[in-house]
Amino acid sequence: MDTQVVIIGGGPSGLLLSQLLNRAGIATVILERASREHVLSRIRAGILEWGSVELLREAGVGARMDAEGIAHDGAWLTDADLMVHVDFKALTGRQVMVYGQTEVTHDLYDAQDAMGTTILHGVEDVRILDLDGPQAAVEYTQGGRRHRLSCAYVAGCDGFHGVSRRTIPEDRRREFERVYPFGWLGILSRTPPVADELIYANSPHGFALASMRNHNLVRYYVQVPLSDRVEDWPDDRFWAEFRRRIPAQAAARLVTGPSIEKSVAPLRSFVSEPLRWGRLFLVGDAAHIVPPTGAKGLNLAVSDVFYLHQALIAALKQGDQAGLDTYSDRALARIWKAMRFSWQMTMMLHRFDGEDGFAAQMRRATLAHLAESETARRELAENYVGLPY
Amino acid sequence: MDTQVVIIGGGPSGLLLSQLLNRAGIATVILERASREHVLSRIRAGILEWGSVELLREAGVGARMDAEGIAHDGAWLTDADLMVHVDFKALTGRQVMVYGQTEVTHDLYDAQDAMGTTILHGVEDVRILDLDGPQAAVEYTQGGRRHRLSCAYVAGCDGFHGVSRRTIPEDRRREFERVYPFGWLGILSRTPPVADELIYANSPHGFALASMRNHNLVRYYVQVPLSDRVEDWPDDRFWAEFRRRIPAQAAARLVTGPSIEKSVAPLRSFVSEPLRWGRLFLVGDAAHIVPPTGAKGLNLAVSDVFYLHQALIAALKQGDQAGLDTYSDRALARIWKAMRFSWQMTMMLHRFDGEDGFAAQMRRATLAHLAESETARRELAENYVGLPY
Repeated sequence: MDTQVVIIGGGPSGLLLSQLLNRAGIATVILERASREHVLSRIRAGILEWGSVELLREAGVGARMDAEGIAHDGAWLTDADLMVHVDFKALTGRQVMVYGQTEVTHDLYDAQDAMGTTILHGVEDVRILDLDGPQAAVEYTQGGRRHRLSCAYVAGCDGFHGVSRRTIPEDRRREFERVYPFGWLGILSRTPPVADELIYANSPHGFALASMRNHNLVRYYVQVPLSDRVEDWPDDRFWAEFRRRIPAQAAARLVTGPSIEKSVAPLRSFVSEPLRWGRLFLVGDAAHIVPPTGAKGLNLAVSDVFYLHQALIAALKQGDQAGLDTYSDRALARIWKAMRFSWQMTMMLHRFDGEDGFAAQMRRATLAHLAESETARRELAENYVGLPY
Repeated sequence: MDTQVVIIGGGPSGLLLSQLLNRAGIATVILERASREHVLSRIRAGILEWGSVELLREAGVGARMDAEGIAHDGAWLTDADLMVHVDFKALTGRQVMVYGQTEVTHDLYDAQDAMGTTILHGVEDVRILDLDGPQAAVEYTQGGRRHRLSCAYVAGCDGFHGVSRRTIPEDRRREFERVYPFGWLGILSRTPPVADELIYANSPHGFALASMRNHNLVRYYVQVPLSDRVEDWPDDRFWAEFRRRIPAQAAARLVTGPSIEKSVAPLRSFVSEPLRWGRLFLVGDAAHIVPPTGAKGLNLAVSDVFYLHQALIAALKQGDQAGLDTYSDRALARIWKAMRFSWQMTMMLHRFDGEDGFAAQMRRATLAHLAESETARRELAENYVGLPY
């Protein structure tokens, strides 16, 4: 065999899986369609569950995260001027870590470089073959030439648009999808955060999220119609809209500035089952997408990696296949719970076009109940900080 | 004045309010459109929150309830063969009481008769007048003759179709409504219950509820299309459908028998604000309706009575108007939380025509999460046994 595990996709989940396997003495090759610069320019998630933090430390990539990341004890959920604080630490004993996906990916590339792992960029036309045979193979084109790698297993970490999921015959996949009728317009700005913790703000004008990357870099969002484009939202319009959706108390502290990035993202829930097809294992966005409300996307990919790296090590080091046999079911059980939480957070915090007055009242009542019920806050907090692996 | 409080409506909320006021030395007259026999033939709710139990005891009508009612420590939520037990007593320290609304009403009539309270039946064409003046008046027709009663206050306990809510000018009311696209077909049968506690059963075929009135009288329901009529559901068809919606383990214990009552009820959420208009105060179904999933209807009426009887006693005995001034806000705060709970239970347990596969998965995931999370079960239990007054 050319290597033990071929990993399709050089984003954070592929890199983390590779890093954990390499540290256990298992050889990997990573194939990535884009350039490293492109991968590192993607601005994505910014909140790590504590389980993710611990796995990154275990992978030997925790040093900069621990130095530069910002641990958050809680978050705010608001509706107009009703502000509910959910104290994760007091309710669950756990925190979350603010540390951008871009930074995680950067640290993982550094660590993989130090390991000497083969990471191939500009890889095209990937085909995953022989998944039922004694060994698998992956064919790809790089630099105009066709290559072939043989391996024991293939990890599909190549995202929603990747080839891995589609390698499973369509009639053997069950797919579930919900497309939400709005998007998030996000900006990045070098300004101090409006609050020390995240604010998930419901309002009569729609949802807004105040998040941060560090003490002088914010990531703010407003819910927008799916038809809106970045050009529809000059900075002034964004700031005015953001300001009227967050509580007055927060708006009074808002510092505005030029955006250094601006983009519109649709919101989608998606799951494809199963996660295993012979010698192929799907990880993260290759098999499931959550709307960003609740910050579960990257964390779910990390929990897939948690289950899969243990299973691959057991299979390749001890010849124990049990973990691989149960990977799909174990990962999916946790995935569906995060799907539920992300869906519920999305429904609770967004205004839906054409909704009746009762729907808005249900959102208000949910916030009012959170304000009064410690059990309701604990239920939210346990899901937000991450259910156990 | 002819009496201190005129109560429109001789159902359980009007009777309970009258009983509590009479015991405090306040005179009441109850006006009811239907005959006593008709009121007592209505088959409605069957589950009392412990706060309701305690208020009925305080009203001096707890003796038969305590002798014949069945305290339940918990309930089952199921999805196909996944059975989740929610142990109310262990999670909250509180139970609920199985004791039919019909029995509560019966006990209240007996107690009111013993008090010598004037309860007028066959009352028509009620008009509520002078709500802004120094005293209110209620005009009505009985036995072909028009009558008029003067009073300090009027309690509108006359249900969704009653005159009380419509006495508030339409442009001064805010109404919120959600009509669900299905109904509940319920039967009453003299058979032993399929389980010792209630079963709220989700299934691919729709919702079913196994509840009981006593050890040889069951009240079972199945979700049906709104277009279905009782004639569409002969007993055999009901039993076959009910059997396939409950878990196999419960179905194996099912004893069937002839139905002694059968009816189809639509499901609706409805709130009208405010609950006060001058000297008029709305109570229970006159101002709000919940779908029956979660058993909140009668209990919400009782909590309205709890707030209102205290406020009326303070006003009429000590001249303290504060309770009357805050009645609407206090009652509505609790009402909206019960609205939220009943809506959420309804959404979690019913199949919606035309729904996507993702919706069914969200229901399954919610049950699976309940099965694993004590906090999620506690959150449900606290709402089910009743939030504090």
